[in-house]
Amino acid sequence: MLLKSKDVLGLYDMPAQDINLILESAATMKQLLLQNAKKMPHLQGKSIVSLFYENSTRTRLSFELAAKYLGGTFSNLGVSSSSVNKGETLLDTGRTIEAMGADIVVIRHQLSGAPKFLAERVSAGVINAGDGTHEHPTQALLDIFTMKERFGGLAGLKVTIIGDISHSRVARSNLWGLSKLGAEVTLCGMETMMPPAIEKSGARVTHDPEEALKGADVVMALRIQKERLEGGLLPSAREYHNFFGINENALMKCKKGVLIMHPGPVNRGVELSSAVVDSKSSVINEQVTNGVAVRMALLYLLTRRKSNEN
Amino acid sequence: MLLKSKDVLGLYDMPAQDINLILESAATMKQLLLQNAKKMPHLQGKSIVSLFYENSTRTRLSFELAAKYLGGTFSNLGVSSSSVNKGETLLDTGRTIEAMGADIVVIRHQLSGAPKFLAERVSAGVINAGDGTHEHPTQALLDIFTMKERFGGLAGLKVTIIGDISHSRVARSNLWGLSKLGAEVTLCGMETMMPPAIEKSGARVTHDPEEALKGADVVMALRIQKERLEGGLLPSAREYHNFFGINENALMKCKKGVLIMHPGPVNRGVELSSAVVDSKSSVINEQVTNGVAVRMALLYLLTRRKSNEN
Amino acid sequence: MLLKSKDVLGLYDMPAQDINLILESAATMKQLLLQNAKKMPHLQGKSIVSLFYENSTRTRLSFELAAKYLGGTFSNLGVSSSSVNKGETLLDTGRTIEAMGADIVVIRHQLSGAPKFLAERVSAGVINAGDGTHEHPTQALLDIFTMKERFGGLAGLKVTIIGDISHSRVARSNLWGLSKLGAEVTLCGMETMMPPAIEKSGARVTHDPEEALKGADVVMALRIQKERLEGGLLPSAREYHNFFGINENALMKCKKGVLIMHPGPVNRGVELSSAVVDSKSSVINEQVTNGVAVRMALLYLLTRRKSNEN
Repeated sequence: MLLKSKDVLGLYDMPAQDINLILESAATMKQLLLQNAKKMPHLQGKSIVSLFYENSTRTRLSFELAAKYLGGTFSNLGVSSSSVNKGETLLDTGRTIEAMGADIVVIRHQLSGAPKFLAERVSAGVINAGDGTHEHPTQALLDIFTMKERFGGLAGLKVTIIGDISHSRVARSNLWGLSKLGAEVTLCGMETMMPPAIEKSGARVTHDPEEALKGADVVMALRIQKERLEGGLLPSAREYHNFFGINENALMKCKKGVLIMHPGPVNRGVELSSAVVDSKSSVINEQVTNGVAVRMALLYLLTRRKSNEN
Repeated sequence: MLLKSKDVLGLYDMPAQDINLILESAATMKQLLLQNAKKMPHLQGKSIVSLFYENSTRTRLSFELAAKYLGGTFSNLGVSSSSVNKGETLLDTGRTIEAMGADIVVIRHQLSGAPKFLAERVSAGVINAGDGTHEHPTQALLDIFTMKERFGGLAGLKVTIIGDISHSRVARSNLWGLSKLGAEVTLCGMETMMPPAIEKSGARVTHDPEEALKGADVVMALRIQKERLEGGLLPSAREYHNFFGINENALMKCKKGVLIMHPGPVNRGVELSSAVVDSKSSVINEQVTNGVAVRMALLYLLTRRKSNEN
Repeated sequence: MLLKSKDVLGLYDMPAQDINLILESAATMKQLLLQNAKKMPHLQGKSIVSLFYENSTRTRLSFELAAKYLGGTFSNLGVSSSSVNKGETLLDTGRTIEAMGADIVVIRHQLSGAPKFLAERVSAGVINAGDGTHEHPTQALLDIFTMKERFGGLAGLKVTIIGDISHSRVARSNLWGLSKLGAEVTLCGMETMMPPAIEKSGARVTHDPEEALKGADVVMALRIQKERLEGGLLPSAREYHNFFGINENALMKCKKGVLIMHPGPVNRGVELSSAVVDSKSSVINEQVTNGVAVRMALLYLLTRRKSNEN
């Protein structure tokens, strides 16, 4: 089985069959990862280059380790690098990387659509590591993997996403992926945090956290951008926590066995209280491990597809 | 066959025989590179460290990938690193790197002569990745490789280099290398862009772009430093383009089969119009690929030489 | 033989037996390092991540090369990275790295005790690469290795450490380690450079450089932080050199065969005159090589210990 596309740009356009293939492959990768002899040959002779126009330690490191554990070479061009800074166009930078032999380009960009723009113009595989407020498919895939691992399947699963939905590529990618696999998604936030006409996606929308948490199998809190709080678009960090933050009190009202998820890094005391982060319900560190497994699967599946083409 | 020197400091002092050895080795390396299983054992157990006192994403990445594709370890000390910043002398930094086991030090420095200074004081091989306005030998070697690959040989080839020759280490290295191999070099730019007495090098010098392009087999446009334009030493970007930039009109007046080259990254609309960059005549991306092949060859030849000595 | 602890946090708490095990292993590693085929399998499948909250090119590069020469994967999170900057807690960052599969975390932090705090909360091995003014155990281990290699043993060896003892983690780690192995340590500096009640450590304390140098087998000059000189806490660089700096004159008064050591990078003309740095008595570059060997030994011993546990 091969992925349908040479790229991973988002879950909106990804067939459910491909999502399932990735989840299965990630389960195998996770076993290899936990063996503690993290040197596999799947990416031997393959070159992975990341191109990050926004800072991200976690996502970059997760891809870096995924590539290295599978024996590939990994190189990073970050925002501090000259090409990214000095006005070279994205396309010229991307084509240069491809001309140097990159099999996969992992790109994060502040503009929605930038990965797609590049993907259509190079023959290397392109993985979207987050673009503007559009999609962050590898984050959603690891979130979905985490849910599937715990509950066995996604069909009928009640998933609540709470926070600034409007500016969240994590929320969007999860919404598209979860809906495709049959989960029931509830989005919760103030009216100013909701994209217009988001109900058309099929998600339930509520402004009331209590209602949102009730009966949920999974509660995913989104990271709040502190810049945004200070900009006056959101209430203060304390107000945010009082209204949308999840503390032990709120956790006790949740369904037994609820999973608390967060893409990290958590602003402790804002989205989640410290006690909730460190509680048994929290699977935040598990998500991090699963992120490496999912990225191992994606790098493997994309390079295998490319080798098949040649 | 071994290289004459333990270092690659410039083409002015490199024997034609060594240039030819590098070009031949690079041809083999390019085949390996295009096989798409970029994991060769040539540099197994060898340690390559780059020491960049000036930013350069492309050149650094090209060396990094060349080293990794051949199984060597690659580590980078960049301008942002403390040793490079905090006033440690070049010699102390270089000797420290050597004491840590580096077989090859790749150095870029704003001062002409810095690589030579270091090379004379360490036993590791030193590769000049650009020093001041002096030389950039690996760029010229990849340029020459690209021309040889297309035309079969260099003897009698008409090569025009256009731009701010005076401040260009790329122009100088190409001039020395191309002349040695029998090519006929024309240099074109305003009088203020010409080094004094450059005619003594044997190159033809002209201030008239039309004359420079006429009959050329290769046209190499140099990158303009925008800082220099703004400093008033050169005309504005628009004026520069009108006078020395190459657009489709100029391209049509060139010899059939002319190669348009540029060391990259191109300021689109300044040195070259976008249409010319993306035209069939442009071999800019090919140059990038050849750059990796040439650097693979250099790293291999220098470490093989060193192993032979031991 | 296995190390007693899963971590290397300091020499104060490390049993002499463990120090000796590390020194023996480092001797083997140095032989491998000097073979010039720096590709060993000791860390195959092991993941080393460094987490540097303070800049340090040398120490980071030394760990990086040690890991790579032994076939491990090495990744760095530096001070410029977002997680380190953006207020994520040390613990959350550390746990994230562990969740991504890190076997060893190498940490440098401006706060004394930070590595211990992390080590107690993760199951990965933690190596202290310098914490505040507390300890810098890998530096002291390489210093001790260098002395043992030259003199055969430490018992009765007269070691003088000269400089700002009060702010030096290098001095502290050396003091604890050397004392344990039977060396006689003399500390020399102005009164303002001495920690209170340091005589209780068993070290001889003197403010007189001449007395300190007399009869010493080893003279270790500490690096002066220029910021501190400018802050008025120490005399000017010139005054410092006149009083505590070691020039050829001072060197001639030393015991024959004295070793001049420095953790590097040297402020030439301040702690040591240039002539002394480049003299036959100086083993500064040897220290650098030994640093890689000692770190190879530590990474190997810690991962072997961890594998044994599993």
